[in-house]
Amino acid sequence: MMEEVRLIQVKEEIFSDNKEIADDLRDNLVKEKTFLINLMSSPGSGKTSLILKTIEKIRDEFRMGVIEADIDSMVDSEKVAAQGIEAIQLRTGGFCHLDASMVKKGLDAMDLGGLDLIIIENVGNLVCPAEFDTGATKNVMILSVPEGDDKPLKYPLMFTVCNVLLVNKIDYLDISDFDIHALRERVLTLNPKIEIFEVSCKTGQGIEDWTNWLREEVKAFGVVSK
Amino acid sequence: MMEEVRLIQVKEEIFSDNKEIADDLRDNLVKEKTFLINLMSSPGSGKTSLILKTIEKIRDEFRMGVIEADIDSMVDSEKVAAQGIEAIQLRTGGFCHLDASMVKKGLDAMDLGGLDLIIIENVGNLVCPAEFDTGATKNVMILSVPEGDDKPLKYPLMFTVCNVLLVNKIDYLDISDFDIHALRERVLTLNPKIEIFEVSCKTGQGIEDWTNWLREEVKAFGVVSK
Repeated sequence: MMEEVRLIQVKEEIFSDNKEIADDLRDNLVKEKTFLINLMSSPGSGKTSLILKTIEKIRDEFRMGVIEADIDSMVDSEKVAAQGIEAIQLRTGGFCHLDASMVKKGLDAMDLGGLDLIIIENVGNLVCPAEFDTGATKNVMILSVPEGDDKPLKYPLMFTVCNVLLVNKIDYLDISDFDIHALRERVLTLNPKIEIFEVSCKTGQGIEDWTNWLREEVKAFGVVSK
Repeated sequence: MMEEVRLIQVKEEIFSDNKEIADDLRDNLVKEKTFLINLMSSPGSGKTSLILKTIEKIRDEFRMGVIEADIDSMVDSEKVAAQGIEAIQLRTGGFCHLDASMVKKGLDAMDLGGLDLIIIENVGNLVCPAEFDTGATKNVMILSVPEGDDKPLKYPLMFTVCNVLLVNKIDYLDISDFDIHALRERVLTLNPKIEIFEVSCKTGQGIEDWTNWLREEVKAFGVVSK
């Protein structure tokens, strides 16, 4: 029993430290007028594809940067950099999530005053990243159709901490037994305020709805378009 | 006949030596002639579907049991129990992986002498479960086609620690840009001894290749069919 109590104390200490760093980051982002998105999902849901589609749609309006977290490789950041967008690679070396101090290292390496919008691609993981405040202005998650409509039942925290859910690979809907209505109901039960967009990074379907939302949010945050 | 699901709450014992507990579990499994599979994948790759297909194919040959790990829900274990197979639910309460002491709690609740083959469905996560020896006889992972062929580059440890890779949802191959040859090459570079099977839990394609392999392994382990 002693061991369990000590475990909780350690966890709370880590969280309170992290929260403080995250709040400091957020204050600084407000000051610099830089909107920061923390993008989370399982491996292979389409985080990098969504970032590339988002860059394509709004790069002419906002000065964008990307922070890519990966356990080992640099394949994603190279794809972003190939579009001429500043990309910082955070190699987590085995860590399964980003915390605020890791994000701080990425932000410290960028010129915040020269950037309106930064997207963090978190480690592909539907569990651990949900537990750590990264200091982001908004949390955004992707669930792709092939993963199944039962995921809110199994990974409730992720759906609870996010401001936006992008249901990606919506072009697979016809050939799968994914029930989009059941999914919506499950998600909204956990998080009634979440915004849900159905998208396909492959066909482009719904991407404009997402970037319209993003544009309004970034402007409401105080960023003036280029 | 429907089996009743038993629920066990588990917590990480951070002061224990995981490897030691895992080795003890493995010794005991050899003694009891119970083959234990640790099944890992991202959320939504098809772990539960594969377990159900495997049960269907070999339940007449071996006495089977299933340990389901889930952060919060019991949806998977209920599907298994509905097939009349003993199912233990480990509720991890937020933890992102199983360790050996959690698995021990599940095994302790089962009659090993009466079971030839137990499959553990680990938490849906391609990162953390790879780091913890559960005491299993073999590690098996699923990668589904919609997740993409670049996953070995991004989550190398998982592909390194597994004895078998099942490439699931192979029926999606035609409508995706997944390069199965590139995938095989990437995986075999990390782990030249891994067995790779292309399967579809939906159409049944390739399932027999997998269960043929499993049957031989379980028999070689010393289990005599029913």
